[in-house]
Amino acid sequence: MATICFAGLGAMGRPMAANLAKAGHAVHGTDVNPAALDWLKANGGTPFATAKEAAAGADALVLMVVNADQAEAVLFEAGALDALAPSAIVILCATCAPARAAAIGAKVEATQRRFVDAPVSGGVVGAEAGSLTIMASAPTSVFAAAEPILKVMGSRLFHVGEKAGDGAMVKTINQLLCGVHIAAAAEALALGERAGLDTKVLLDIYGSSAAGSWMLNNRGPRMLMDDPPVTSAVDIFVKDLGIVLDAGHSTRAPLFLAAAAHQLFLAASGMGLGSRDDSQVIEAYRAMAPKD
Amino acid sequence: MATICFAGLGAMGRPMAANLAKAGHAVHGTDVNPAALDWLKANGGTPFATAKEAAAGADALVLMVVNADQAEAVLFEAGALDALAPSAIVILCATCAPARAAAIGAKVEATQRRFVDAPVSGGVVGAEAGSLTIMASAPTSVFAAAEPILKVMGSRLFHVGEKAGDGAMVKTINQLLCGVHIAAAAEALALGERAGLDTKVLLDIYGSSAAGSWMLNNRGPRMLMDDPPVTSAVDIFVKDLGIVLDAGHSTRAPLFLAAAAHQLFLAASGMGLGSRDDSQVIEAYRAMAPKD
Repeated sequence: MATICFAGLGAMGRPMAANLAKAGHAVHGTDVNPAALDWLKANGGTPFATAKEAAAGADALVLMVVNADQAEAVLFEAGALDALAPSAIVILCATCAPARAAAIGAKVEATQRRFVDAPVSGGVVGAEAGSLTIMASAPTSVFAAAEPILKVMGSRLFHVGEKAGDGAMVKTINQLLCGVHIAAAAEALALGERAGLDTKVLLDIYGSSAAGSWMLNNRGPRMLMDDPPVTSAVDIFVKDLGIVLDAGHSTRAPLFLAAAAHQLFLAASGMGLGSRDDSQVIEAYRAMAPKD
Repeated sequence: MATICFAGLGAMGRPMAANLAKAGHAVHGTDVNPAALDWLKANGGTPFATAKEAAAGADALVLMVVNADQAEAVLFEAGALDALAPSAIVILCATCAPARAAAIGAKVEATQRRFVDAPVSGGVVGAEAGSLTIMASAPTSVFAAAEPILKVMGSRLFHVGEKAGDGAMVKTINQLLCGVHIAAAAEALALGERAGLDTKVLLDIYGSSAAGSWMLNNRGPRMLMDDPPVTSAVDIFVKDLGIVLDAGHSTRAPLFLAAAAHQLFLAASGMGLGSRDDSQVIEAYRAMAPKD
């Protein structure tokens, strides 16, 4: 069993850290939010006030922070990287642009430590169940060394490449599909409303047909609610589709649909809906083509 | 049991007509292709050389032709409408623009005959199994009168509205989702290729996750084949997304994703791939961002 520094005890990070503790690892947690540290203490881990203290001598560092900026802050500014055991494995789970993940990996490897680019998907539900999808890239031997830790957090574990950035690119393309599918569902349902159709019937027809998508079935019903619960915010897709477009930009690959979808999430955010459920991107369509 | 005139004995029309004959109806078939008439004779129906003869005194007319132009040619130019029994039901199954379906319905009803706007989805497989999805609009009493015939052809029968054009609009939105999802799958897989990732693994990851769509799972594998079988052609989506955009135009509803997807199908068609499988829309992306 390893000593694992866990940075980023948010909605997903908490159950991931708790699952690692339950599996018998010594989980040394760190987060800027004191409530998160209290939570960790009550759930099998050991909280530390600073990332450097949490990382001291640890065999592995899991970064479940919000973005690349925060990952760099923990690793390089707060001094976690240099505090780790000499051959420790750094596992980057945050959703980062591929170029950023690659750059972070290079700086980690320059200290002789090992790096796994390992973004996840599956949300809080998957994090709690330990059933996340993990899209990991690393040299084969490093992937093998990290596998026991990764398997505690996710049940769908894919080794998608040898180099840092590959994992981030797989997650980026995942977000491309998710974002476009949400916007497509909004475009379809808004047109149905505009045409005076019963949109509940539309969801019933399309959801189980060739027109269906996971997002249509999941977000579609929330598009028809007045004030749906927030499972993931509009501004998350403003950020993630931004990463998608950056990846297309840097690889010189035009992404027509992702670019259009990004504009719609931006519009919804500009309408003041950034912190609302991402299904509310439909409000951008409704603003332009209201129901009679 | 009714006498049913069936116009349009193509790949889907043949099994639909055969299922009606199997159910005990007298099926009077008509098609411009003589081979289709021979096929019908061998499969329980009675072929006629002209639409007018096939329609003479029939209780119902099923139009499974390619588009609104062909439906109008059968009904109005070939004289099928006036040849039908006085209170016959005309069932329009072709994919038509909502405004066109509404106009056809008005002309049918002007002769005191009844009209059901009843586009279908489910492809040849669904047509053979009698398991098509049928998105039907008509006054409730007319829908009820047509139901015994519709139920022979489809197992997922929805009464989506009272007026002609509603069924066509539901099918139009269905095609919006299908077309955008195919183009999104192409955009995602082409970016994966460009980034040097294993696209078979990508399909495995995304297909059963929040990034998944029916089209990703169905067309995705064919996007990775050199010369896939044609289940539906690129030019079908050039046509259908054209209908989608016309519907958006006439209702003044902007359709950003459908418009972008249409451009990509047009590009693939312009590359000479119009009769290839619609999965080959990915070639438009590959042309712009080739794999290294």
